[in-house]
Amino acid sequence: MDVSLRPATLIEVAARSGTAFVLERGDVLTIVDPDGEQVADLIAFPADDPRESLSNGRTFDYESTVRLTVGNRLWSNRSRPLLTIVRDDVGTHDFLLTPCSRETWRLCYGGRHDDVPGCFGNLADALAPFGVAADAIPTTFNVFMHVRTDADGRLRVLPPLSRPGDRFAVRAEERLIVGLTACSASQSNNGRCTPIRYGIERP
Amino acid sequence: MDVSLRPATLIEVAARSGTAFVLERGDVLTIVDPDGEQVADLIAFPADDPRESLSNGRTFDYESTVRLTVGNRLWSNRSRPLLTIVRDDVGTHDFLLTPCSRETWRLCYGGRHDDVPGCFGNLADALAPFGVAADAIPTTFNVFMHVRTDADGRLRVLPPLSRPGDRFAVRAEERLIVGLTACSASQSNNGRCTPIRYGIERP
Repeated sequence: MDVSLRPATLIEVAARSGTAFVLERGDVLTIVDPDGEQVADLIAFPADDPRESLSNGRTFDYESTVRLTVGNRLWSNRSRPLLTIVRDDVGTHDFLLTPCSRETWRLCYGGRHDDVPGCFGNLADALAPFGVAADAIPTTFNVFMHVRTDADGRLRVLPPLSRPGDRFAVRAEERLIVGLTACSASQSNNGRCTPIRYGIERP
Repeated sequence: MDVSLRPATLIEVAARSGTAFVLERGDVLTIVDPDGEQVADLIAFPADDPRESLSNGRTFDYESTVRLTVGNRLWSNRSRPLLTIVRDDVGTHDFLLTPCSRETWRLCYGGRHDDVPGCFGNLADALAPFGVAADAIPTTFNVFMHVRTDADGRLRVLPPLSRPGDRFAVRAEERLIVGLTACSASQSNNGRCTPIRYGIERP
């Protein structure tokens, strides 16, 4: 599939915000980092039953890697592939850490900005109209997020490797409710939070 | 806290089986590998609301490591610590991979033994009387499981480092429903599945 130039129309997710929408089976969702070094948290649930969702553990089980890129599938807690990665300009993403939240600021960042809902709050608000409860939001697939695991197991969040215009695209393997954010934690985005853009192609 | 010799009474979880029980806040759960090289999958939910559960992502966020040992806390999806590790004779466990299941055998092991319910089926059966649905079982904390992440991100399951009699203990920070298995996948247990024992101390 040639996803090099498409889609023509891109929708902006403002800095430090989130959105949700439905993908039909076969749709390709392209996520663009317009300014570079910006993370986008991605989550998906089958539209007919949001008790099923992306699972980092099942994905690690079946793909046998934590470095997920073109050709890898993102699996659900019911052991079904929900998304297949079809384009990846960057190659470094994260599926270990959860969306930033008020608790992230309180527990990790000394309380600074703990009035910001974070990706978790933004996803909860955006997904509520689709019948997805906040408790049902698991570990997200964090597009462009750069997390290094040191030899001793320590985790470090580094500046994203995405440059302006870099793209990442997934194909929906089921009809899905999708949540997507422009990450709110400046610590994950090399000090500044910028927008994300996305587009949907329907084959 | 001296947990070197206690508890006096140990309960056996038969090879390839699972169980569930309640821990009161402050209880210490000790897990023993009697024969060595045997994995035990562990999961916990607050007894008053099992929509909350252990979260590998939140734990990685707040502990900043994937190598969890004495002093580390295991956090919930609501950003609360549910368990604190108080003894660890081995130091190598896994919080990346999900409990083995019928799908594990089908998708990872070429269909061999796909009549075995696996840790996922055993946990689902054991937790059902406590009101925990199978869909609500997230990635478990896999005690004694030895998973290596290669530099290129590839995951490899290696023989557990636990020797006969090695122990791992956690303190309950809330009143909890706990699920515990003796892992059913010989591939995770150096070729043979053996029992696990556990004991509970109430201070």
